[in-house]
Amino acid sequence: MHAYRTHTCGALRASDVGETVRLSGWVHRKRDHGGVLFVDLRDNYGITQVVADVDSPALPILESVRVESVVTIDGLVKARAADTTNPNLPTGEIEVFAKTATVQSAAQELPMPVAGEADYPEDIRLRYRFLDLRRERLHANIVLRSHVISSIRRRMIDQGFTEFQTPILTASSPEGARDYLVPSRVHPGKFYALPQAPQMFKQLIMVAGFDRYFQIAPCFRDEDARADRSPGEFYQLDFEMSFVTQDDVFAAIEPVLHGVFEEFAGDRQVSPAPFPRIPYREAMLKYGSDKPDLRNPIVITDVSEHFKGSGFGLFARLVEGGSVVRAIPAPNTADKSRKFFDDMNDWARAEGHAGLGYITQKGGELGGPIAKNHGEEATRKLIEALGLGPDDGIFFAAGKEGQAAKLAGAARTRVGEQLGLIDKNRFEFCWIVDFPMYEYDEEAKKIDFSHNPFSMPQGELEALETRDPLDILAYQYDIVCNGVELSSGAIRNHRPEIMYKAFEIAGYSKQDVDTNFAGMINAFKYGAPPHGGSAPGIDRIVMLLADEPNIREVILFPMNQRAEDLMMGAPSQVTPKQLRELHIRTVDGPGPKDGKAAAAVVAPE
Amino acid sequence: MHAYRTHTCGALRASDVGETVRLSGWVHRKRDHGGVLFVDLRDNYGITQVVADVDSPALPILESVRVESVVTIDGLVKARAADTTNPNLPTGEIEVFAKTATVQSAAQELPMPVAGEADYPEDIRLRYRFLDLRRERLHANIVLRSHVISSIRRRMIDQGFTEFQTPILTASSPEGARDYLVPSRVHPGKFYALPQAPQMFKQLIMVAGFDRYFQIAPCFRDEDARADRSPGEFYQLDFEMSFVTQDDVFAAIEPVLHGVFEEFAGDRQVSPAPFPRIPYREAMLKYGSDKPDLRNPIVITDVSEHFKGSGFGLFARLVEGGSVVRAIPAPNTADKSRKFFDDMNDWARAEGHAGLGYITQKGGELGGPIAKNHGEEATRKLIEALGLGPDDGIFFAAGKEGQAAKLAGAARTRVGEQLGLIDKNRFEFCWIVDFPMYEYDEEAKKIDFSHNPFSMPQGELEALETRDPLDILAYQYDIVCNGVELSSGAIRNHRPEIMYKAFEIAGYSKQDVDTNFAGMINAFKYGAPPHGGSAPGIDRIVMLLADEPNIREVILFPMNQRAEDLMMGAPSQVTPKQLRELHIRTVDGPGPKDGKAAAAVVAPE
Repeated sequence: MHAYRTHTCGALRASDVGETVRLSGWVHRKRDHGGVLFVDLRDNYGITQVVADVDSPALPILESVRVESVVTIDGLVKARAADTTNPNLPTGEIEVFAKTATVQSAAQELPMPVAGEADYPEDIRLRYRFLDLRRERLHANIVLRSHVISSIRRRMIDQGFTEFQTPILTASSPEGARDYLVPSRVHPGKFYALPQAPQMFKQLIMVAGFDRYFQIAPCFRDEDARADRSPGEFYQLDFEMSFVTQDDVFAAIEPVLHGVFEEFAGDRQVSPAPFPRIPYREAMLKYGSDKPDLRNPIVITDVSEHFKGSGFGLFARLVEGGSVVRAIPAPNTADKSRKFFDDMNDWARAEGHAGLGYITQKGGELGGPIAKNHGEEATRKLIEALGLGPDDGIFFAAGKEGQAAKLAGAARTRVGEQLGLIDKNRFEFCWIVDFPMYEYDEEAKKIDFSHNPFSMPQGELEALETRDPLDILAYQYDIVCNGVELSSGAIRNHRPEIMYKAFEIAGYSKQDVDTNFAGMINAFKYGAPPHGGSAPGIDRIVMLLADEPNIREVILFPMNQRAEDLMMGAPSQVTPKQLRELHIRTVDGPGPKDGKAAAAVVAPE
Repeated sequence: MHAYRTHTCGALRASDVGETVRLSGWVHRKRDHGGVLFVDLRDNYGITQVVADVDSPALPILESVRVESVVTIDGLVKARAADTTNPNLPTGEIEVFAKTATVQSAAQELPMPVAGEADYPEDIRLRYRFLDLRRERLHANIVLRSHVISSIRRRMIDQGFTEFQTPILTASSPEGARDYLVPSRVHPGKFYALPQAPQMFKQLIMVAGFDRYFQIAPCFRDEDARADRSPGEFYQLDFEMSFVTQDDVFAAIEPVLHGVFEEFAGDRQVSPAPFPRIPYREAMLKYGSDKPDLRNPIVITDVSEHFKGSGFGLFARLVEGGSVVRAIPAPNTADKSRKFFDDMNDWARAEGHAGLGYITQKGGELGGPIAKNHGEEATRKLIEALGLGPDDGIFFAAGKEGQAAKLAGAARTRVGEQLGLIDKNRFEFCWIVDFPMYEYDEEAKKIDFSHNPFSMPQGELEALETRDPLDILAYQYDIVCNGVELSSGAIRNHRPEIMYKAFEIAGYSKQDVDTNFAGMINAFKYGAPPHGGSAPGIDRIVMLLADEPNIREVILFPMNQRAEDLMMGAPSQVTPKQLRELHIRTVDGPGPKDGKAAAAVVAPE
């Protein structure tokens, strides 16, 4: 018989009744029924009920160990009585009568419980992550994460992609976020940086003549924590393709995303591929956001024209002054109190906006000051134009276009949530396309890139040379699911002459480009293919599928919000010898600890 | 028609003759046959011959571009004449008559050629890695690496393993090699370290109640370069299992290694699983190494007894003084000159040994001074005991056991190589088992751990309490292929009381253990399963399969031996602002560069 187990704790069924078995696992729960002890024995695969009665030599041993101790049980599989079977447990038809018990590892008193899902302070959970991870929900999340990544890999390979690893020790670059730096021992005064993303590498992989690259890539940004981003490291499905148009990129990745969501969605519905493509400007108008949650059925409409010369003077004057008015329908709100509408207005003010006007309807009967001043006929015309029914209210966001769009978007979300219009059982994908290449930077009083300066402008060199920069769109796209941006992507600008021109428009000289982006621009001078890609966030995909709003619930060993690993004690002080070897000194904070030599040398494998 | 291609450059066959196609790729080679230009067009998938004759508008365009430019060709697929088909090329039955050509990206003059495999200085190759990677052999190596890793993943999952990612920003630890450190911005004076291996994490994953974990894990050691190890980062197939014995670990990983080698070995033979298990002491005796190359048929024998009181006084005296004599057969050396044997002796001396005595045989006729002094009868008895034939010579390594074993091992390798006995078309695996737990440290005059102090001693606590420490073996094992150590592994010591005792024997107090290994020892006090694993090196596996002795030939973007990435310019100087934010100063080397602000912000995906 095997030293530790003949079966896992999730394996035994009614068909095993009569077998002599050996099980090993953690003591999950103990219930003492007066001389008979019931132990739920747990391992990675499940839970099996073990019974030790007064005749069993296992009884005193199991009685004496604390929960979470690891034990090995030899016993006999018996059928449970019909009234004691547990249909919620795959092993619920049987129990194992313990003949002997061996303690493999005795647990001392626990700092937090494992059985049950009681809420516990996060610092305790992170410090004792090896206990926290034994809990059912977190265990399931981490296994889900692994299965999601594995499914993504398989699907990418099925789509003809090849996975490559790019370096983790690389060069600091003038990119968006803050780099993590690594001092070089061999080159005093010089530093490696951890990659914020393998952006340059993946483009160089295309220049190197490969095609359809992907990587489940670790990325590092030294930024403060956000709910959806861990401090430190995160993972993305980084991919890039050569000789492609934007549609080719979409066609390659849609089946992967759709497939993986379908696989793990359970009862939830996934929007079919191809996903809708929504131009940026349309998204900002209809959803007040470039990350629209399409589960929300509310669609915003520009109603500025309706208020030109309106009896509602405030909107009339705003429209005359170049502002816009946006209507956010509030369907089936006939039975909503005045308070519902006023609270929305108060919320908008609290958010720093001028307010949120509204029209109410109850069986076609209009209410609210806007309807009154705008006039019944004009209001009915407006309602008809919006295609609303007799019980649908309307909120209005007015102001400068950007501001009004933002308010309308936030109001759309809030109305949708408050009216329960957002179906939690759906995953709704869309592409946001046609992002503007440039925007006017009000502070610097100049034109600058809106997003990624390395995207290909639509119309290429000709557009750059002949069109108003603010009208030029880029081959740049975001993939959004349920209002969560999974990633940006682009068809890259692979032509040095277009790159120089694009930067010139934003006020940068050829020399600026050559100095700051030498690696990329030089590589493009030795034959570069047209290429493009994207990089959906793995952590966000898993958060959506696990329905977890906190990213730390889908990461095995996350840092806390102060960028500390409480279990491993990172970051930590290091020895003066380590700092000397790296040619650095710390300039504030506590001094280096006394460099007590390690008690023993461990050769990691 | 697609903007760039209807087919890849590896796709067209005789069945496509008559089709109008569009191809895009790099101009690999051009051959001008007087008014007719032949262009080999290359992409990730293959090469297609493109023809432009004097009537084609493509001719002047293709004539004018340099090789390695990227072009798009519209043309007609024609069958090649029978005498011009190229059976070595999958597309060799056809050629594409170019109607038009569009330059997507013009190449300037190249610093190194792509077509052909001419040797080129490594610094040029690394600086222009994006060109080097276009070369056939390197391209194939990198694709092989990806396929090997993908196959390993699939096979591990098939064996019931689950892949998890462990943190890359973690704590500095008192382990074997030097850590790469990452200064913390949020915690002045403190540092993260990059993991030398996920050793602690994988054991904590087992303590956390998971089972059968694996990871294609990036590992980081700030060590100087070796032929088989890149400076900086490398990858290992890290895995760990719970409730297992050593045999379970072997049984889980053997099919994976055997399978992946079989898959990519081509015509080469792979030793069948189960692989031989060779105790450490036997390996040191028979092969003079704990990394034996089993393709070499030579087996070393201890012949000390034969030389007790021998007429060959040197060996007799050595054996009397406690030294040993080891015999290394040199089969079928009847036709080898005296020089062959003397050269071997010279080599041994040059390596710092006392020398390598020998006996020659030619049809049973003995030669060499040892045979003469030892006496014919005794020599024939020795030859018979070794089971040698009448044309087999013998080399002798004599000295203290460790030294003699080492010399015998090196001589075995050298004899095997020089006699051409090592079959390059085989992969021979073995396990080395039963490593001693302790060794006597001659310098420190004390007993210390031989290898990993966290391995479980065979016999557990009882052995530690009752046996001579130098006789205690560990559940520690190496997997070796063709003389290359792919990894160490062990059944771990998961019991604090055994851990304290094991360290006590090596002279460390309970407090030493608690101080230096707090994380691990504390976790083991909350219920730890028996567990074990290993971590075969990915780079070494790919080197074996690609038959590349230089690790940089199997890594996409390797650093050079000075730990520099010449293409990306890493490591590099950083701005004073970056250093200030990290609370560090450099203490020697050049000062920080003037912090010229980046010309543009790039948002990496």
